[in-house]
Amino acid sequence: MTDPIRPTDDGARRQARRLRDAARHGVLGVLDPATGRPQLSRVALLPTRSADLLMLVSTLSRHWTALEADPRCALMLDETTSGDPMAAPRLSLDARALPADKAAAQQDWLAAHPGAEIYYHFADFRLLHLEVEGGFLVGGFGRAFRLTRADLEN
Amino acid sequence: MTDPIRPTDDGARRQARRLRDAARHGVLGVLDPATGRPQLSRVALLPTRSADLLMLVSTLSRHWTALEADPRCALMLDETTSGDPMAAPRLSLDARALPADKAAAQQDWLAAHPGAEIYYHFADFRLLHLEVEGGFLVGGFGRAFRLTRADLEN
Repeated sequence: MTDPIRPTDDGARRQARRLRDAARHGVLGVLDPATGRPQLSRVALLPTRSADLLMLVSTLSRHWTALEADPRCALMLDETTSGDPMAAPRLSLDARALPADKAAAQQDWLAAHPGAEIYYHFADFRLLHLEVEGGFLVGGFGRAFRLTRADLEN
Repeated sequence: MTDPIRPTDDGARRQARRLRDAARHGVLGVLDPATGRPQLSRVALLPTRSADLLMLVSTLSRHWTALEADPRCALMLDETTSGDPMAAPRLSLDARALPADKAAAQQDWLAAHPGAEIYYHFADFRLLHLEVEGGFLVGGFGRAFRLTRADLEN
């Protein structure tokens, strides 16, 4: 019985930032406002130049309603690999959802998500800024690291 | 502004069951016992013959600790596709984690997860039965369905 959480080193910091910077999609975890249970959705993302990410959300989605009630959320980011998903590196982030300027981000968003051209301007689509508070990296089987926001900053 | 949630039909039920039956991995959402925040992990899964799934978990993992405090959890299951992840079908499930018989499930588990042969018998690995209470299917862009447990039963 050994603690699988290792001291955070530069290799872990680099791997975590690489996963964050490569993220264009991820799984979002929020709290269901009716029950307090965890609730998961697939979301479209775009990393910012800091530790944070932008997320495009419809106000018709259930995660929008949940984030209005409680902005605390989590993200799971991983690489698509052809190997064993339990051996592949993945990063989970703790974040807080804040409003973001959709018009200002339009060019960057559509460069990363060209398919969104059709609906980016729809009134029910809002852009949120996910302010990252910390993270948890699994670098492979039994190799885990806790990360602060400072560890994740470029 | 139209409600994206459609009446549940047999096509939605079939698509949801197919996603569940194909799941060997997924993203698990639990509640962090210290903060009440959502917390996400990648997990290995095996569907049962009912609506439920089995999950192999190390007692050294943080989701084990979280589920001991509160067994309510969520799963995100999706297909690996080469296309746009926002257009690909995905199923999120609400579940409750219960103890399961690891020895009885060993043969089925290792047939689905041959790489687990190395650690399946480790004392810190436990098998949990995820009793599914309901689900939410996104069958594609703007096509969402709520599912009861009965909708998900084979």
